[in-house]
Amino acid sequence: MSATENRRRALALLLADDGLDGLLVTDLINIRYLTGFTGSNAALLVAAAGDDESMFCTDGRYEAQSAAEVPDLPSRIDRPSALALVSTATGQIGFESRAVSVADHALQVRAAPPGVELVGTPDLVEQLRAVKDPGEIDALRTACGVADRALADLIDSGDMRPGRTEREVGLDLDERMRRLGASDPAFETIVAAGKNSAIPHHRPTSRPLAVGDLLKLDFGAAVSGYHSDMTRTFVLGRPADWQLEIYALVLLAQSTGRGAAVVGATGGQVDAAARDVITAAGYGPRFAHGLGHGVGLQIHEAPSLGPGSTGIIGADMCVTVEPGVYLPGRGGVRIEDTGVVRASSSDPDSVGLGYEVLTLTSRDLIVL
Amino acid sequence: MSATENRRRALALLLADDGLDGLLVTDLINIRYLTGFTGSNAALLVAAAGDDESMFCTDGRYEAQSAAEVPDLPSRIDRPSALALVSTATGQIGFESRAVSVADHALQVRAAPPGVELVGTPDLVEQLRAVKDPGEIDALRTACGVADRALADLIDSGDMRPGRTEREVGLDLDERMRRLGASDPAFETIVAAGKNSAIPHHRPTSRPLAVGDLLKLDFGAAVSGYHSDMTRTFVLGRPADWQLEIYALVLLAQSTGRGAAVVGATGGQVDAAARDVITAAGYGPRFAHGLGHGVGLQIHEAPSLGPGSTGIIGADMCVTVEPGVYLPGRGGVRIEDTGVVRASSSDPDSVGLGYEVLTLTSRDLIVL
Repeated sequence: MSATENRRRALALLLADDGLDGLLVTDLINIRYLTGFTGSNAALLVAAAGDDESMFCTDGRYEAQSAAEVPDLPSRIDRPSALALVSTATGQIGFESRAVSVADHALQVRAAPPGVELVGTPDLVEQLRAVKDPGEIDALRTACGVADRALADLIDSGDMRPGRTEREVGLDLDERMRRLGASDPAFETIVAAGKNSAIPHHRPTSRPLAVGDLLKLDFGAAVSGYHSDMTRTFVLGRPADWQLEIYALVLLAQSTGRGAAVVGATGGQVDAAARDVITAAGYGPRFAHGLGHGVGLQIHEAPSLGPGSTGIIGADMCVTVEPGVYLPGRGGVRIEDTGVVRASSSDPDSVGLGYEVLTLTSRDLIVL
Repeated sequence: MSATENRRRALALLLADDGLDGLLVTDLINIRYLTGFTGSNAALLVAAAGDDESMFCTDGRYEAQSAAEVPDLPSRIDRPSALALVSTATGQIGFESRAVSVADHALQVRAAPPGVELVGTPDLVEQLRAVKDPGEIDALRTACGVADRALADLIDSGDMRPGRTEREVGLDLDERMRRLGASDPAFETIVAAGKNSAIPHHRPTSRPLAVGDLLKLDFGAAVSGYHSDMTRTFVLGRPADWQLEIYALVLLAQSTGRGAAVVGATGGQVDAAARDVITAAGYGPRFAHGLGHGVGLQIHEAPSLGPGSTGIIGADMCVTVEPGVYLPGRGGVRIEDTGVVRASSSDPDSVGLGYEVLTLTSRDLIVL
């Protein structure tokens, strides 16, 4: 059975549990997850009764592409695609209430045959997507590898040196990721030097790198729809004591966070494990964001690892672990990996134990 | 008065016309248009009574940024921002029914004080955005200039030569646009060589360019939020007669289309003017897409220039003109400019007449 067929089968079970006859899927990322389709317009009606009763729909531009990408589902060519599917539905049909606009929903209600009820069911597919299957983990590993190699190339090139700007370094890194096979950076690459490194989500500027700077790079590659996410912080020239101190602290917090990312923990517990290390050292207020987030077909997806996150971490969830300490006006350090939470060793199918890191760049402090 | 204040004033007049007390704006592009804010989370309540009664809201991450970008509106810091604004509203409030999800709308209805009615009002801001003010036309000119210079550099470099792949040429062009100041390509750059040039929206592949190929580049730069859009088609080596024939035909259709893009015409009339040229030459079925589209803060926006488009072209609308002829299995030619429709010469404020081209690269056939 193909991976997408497996996913549709899992969704059909969720639908049956909820007493729904089907789900109208219009979020294109969820459609990609359930079918493999990568075009820019489609809709999918997943029937609780299975693939034979399900239907994929796209428009004429994608006739050949959808035949190749979605060979295993009944399909039709029509536009607007969601309305075409609604008009064939029967019974109680869920719809993605976070993805459908009020205007589109009104049209869908009008297109539904008598007796069809449309029920808002947020996050059904997102819930499935939190747990990655082996093909997804391979794709994430590939995306992480592209980012690792791009960074290694950039370090070797000597192009991260005083006088070059944040923006130039960001373009260097993005170009290397593209040359290595990324369709795009996974998000807008962060290059933050000197006091800018104290801004958690700084955008690259024309500020030149200077001796004595902390240099924070937060970046990733998008490959085959999957994203990687990694942060490394460097020092230009001989590190100052305060830089060494917060670097060592963040490194310890990050390692503690990775150690706490195990099956059965809540997101809040993983966050707290890392945060406690920073708080105990007196830097608690200098770590003002969550510890991490799920990553996959989107750069931010379920589960969340933040203060109070109640979701339970399951086997094969892919999450980032990214504590930081930011000293306004001076500089900051963040260290982040993307990794997979593996089943515990009591599971005979376990392929590892705990948090398996996919971003393999060394976390040792590199002096540029 | 600032440009954004002007725009809010124009919107307030539309609201008063519609009997609305305000508009809850949640589309981030519309918020940027109305306020200048470029962050990733905000909401705006535009009051028909004017700026003093309006309110901008974003979250704590953007406190400093919003103070700098939106100095001229009452504002608050709260998250979720839209709900914070709805809770302060009075009377009949429009909302952007194409931009608000069913789930968010339900929360907004719940947050609204008694007596407040939320009314779906699609496209009010989009209607204003179709007509560009001088600052916007400057921004579009800059974005077009970046694309022109990137292409000139690429031609001069000799890097569009047999053996290099579509994907390599696309990366070359994208990198040049970024180095010249684009925040990003305006959309996924199309590089289509040989028979791939017959596919209107081909994605670059590892196919190497070869002598005898038509080579179609469709690309643009995003600068300060504004987009350019240009297509040029080249030939590698001595052109064949059929290539010269369709090139000359598309060139004539494009020039005819530009000539027809005047104030008062419908989008359908502009499309027909160019299409008739191609149809008269017997290639009508080989031009299977619309002639053009509005361009601005989005790469595709109002107005549309396609068969049957009924919208009337107004002064200072910015549209593309992009006819093509595509011969499946052989190759295709498209020639596209971005330009501004200027007021007729009977208007004393006219700064030109008819369609002012912003993409200045020569349309002569370039043999590589």
